[in-house]
Amino acid sequence: MSATLFYFDGRGKAEIIRLTMAAAKVPFTQVDIRQKQQFEALKAEGKLVFGQLPLVEYEGNNLVQSCSTARYFAAKGDLLGANEQEKLNVDILFEGTRDFNSAFMSYGFAGFTEVLDNAKKTAIPKYLPVFNSVLLRNGSNGHLVGSKLSLADIGLLEVILTIEELLGEDELKPYPEVQNFLKVMKSNDAIANYLRSDLRRKKNDEKYVAEVKRVLY
Amino acid sequence: MSATLFYFDGRGKAEIIRLTMAAAKVPFTQVDIRQKQQFEALKAEGKLVFGQLPLVEYEGNNLVQSCSTARYFAAKGDLLGANEQEKLNVDILFEGTRDFNSAFMSYGFAGFTEVLDNAKKTAIPKYLPVFNSVLLRNGSNGHLVGSKLSLADIGLLEVILTIEELLGEDELKPYPEVQNFLKVMKSNDAIANYLRSDLRRKKNDEKYVAEVKRVLY
Repeated sequence: MSATLFYFDGRGKAEIIRLTMAAAKVPFTQVDIRQKQQFEALKAEGKLVFGQLPLVEYEGNNLVQSCSTARYFAAKGDLLGANEQEKLNVDILFEGTRDFNSAFMSYGFAGFTEVLDNAKKTAIPKYLPVFNSVLLRNGSNGHLVGSKLSLADIGLLEVILTIEELLGEDELKPYPEVQNFLKVMKSNDAIANYLRSDLRRKKNDEKYVAEVKRVLY
Repeated sequence: MSATLFYFDGRGKAEIIRLTMAAAKVPFTQVDIRQKQQFEALKAEGKLVFGQLPLVEYEGNNLVQSCSTARYFAAKGDLLGANEQEKLNVDILFEGTRDFNSAFMSYGFAGFTEVLDNAKKTAIPKYLPVFNSVLLRNGSNGHLVGSKLSLADIGLLEVILTIEELLGEDELKPYPEVQNFLKVMKSNDAIANYLRSDLRRKKNDEKYVAEVKRVLY
């Protein structure tokens, strides 16, 4: 069954859901929220428990809270780990990728260069060595846990794609395991197809930031 | 088997873990981190994947990332929902309680009255009506999902206890379902025992804020 994602025409909090649905092979379409009245209509219909986007309509459920939605589809795609130990490690490492990712969420909203400068000073030197080590300890197979794709990988992929696009691939050079991870991820057909498709939205720009603010305020 | 929690001598990011372990009836002891060298020793031993507290040692695992740790113990205590639909709702509502709770996490670190004034202006009028409605729609039984205690309840309890203590119970008066929820939670023996015990730490004060800063910086 197909899912419908309601979000702004950008990555933001929806990107982890899109990547997870793609990896789990759940087909989805998107409704871009461009006008305040579309957002207000969703709220009035009672579809947004906390009055926030993203929303995914799927099999009669109104899925909100992006991490919950990602976990829900990851479960459908068997991406949460093969046993209790793996499940624990996937959950911990996924949460770590969310902290790492948060350094980039305000890109454009709290300036463009300012957000990147700050990430280079704090989040990148904190998290890239950690994930490089975890990948090494897991056997340099391009996965954070076990020997196949998991939600932890998808969470890390989101951040690494951001770094590659906004700061350049040279930023990853000191972290060979992370470079290998990115190569392995891009060789996953489901992920590669998604990244090439027009389901993948563009990085934040001035126009996007203005559109989001117009809808929200 | 007993768990050992390593954290500062306060609630902070560890409180959701303590409440969950109590509700799941997992016995635990606490090691208070008061000196920088204790913190550095845990890092040097490789127990803190992301270099952050809280840490729980349990059955040979080094559990980090507080939400993952809470989910782990909630699973042990059968507090994640009785079926797929309940599991989804528990996960979504728990995430919502984390957003709500974040309004109070900087209490003392970003001022005392400032944090409370801000919470009264934004988080409280946003989230209390939502949780009041969810409780009503679930049948006014004092639980957010189904007919028994879940991690979503525990997450909400943490915030409501904070509001009761820091702002007074009158703050809850416009929300009768939330008042009833608090009464039901306090009548849970495992939770009541925990709240009466010295495992429950005090609200943040100047001394605590200084101690945390001394360990971290």
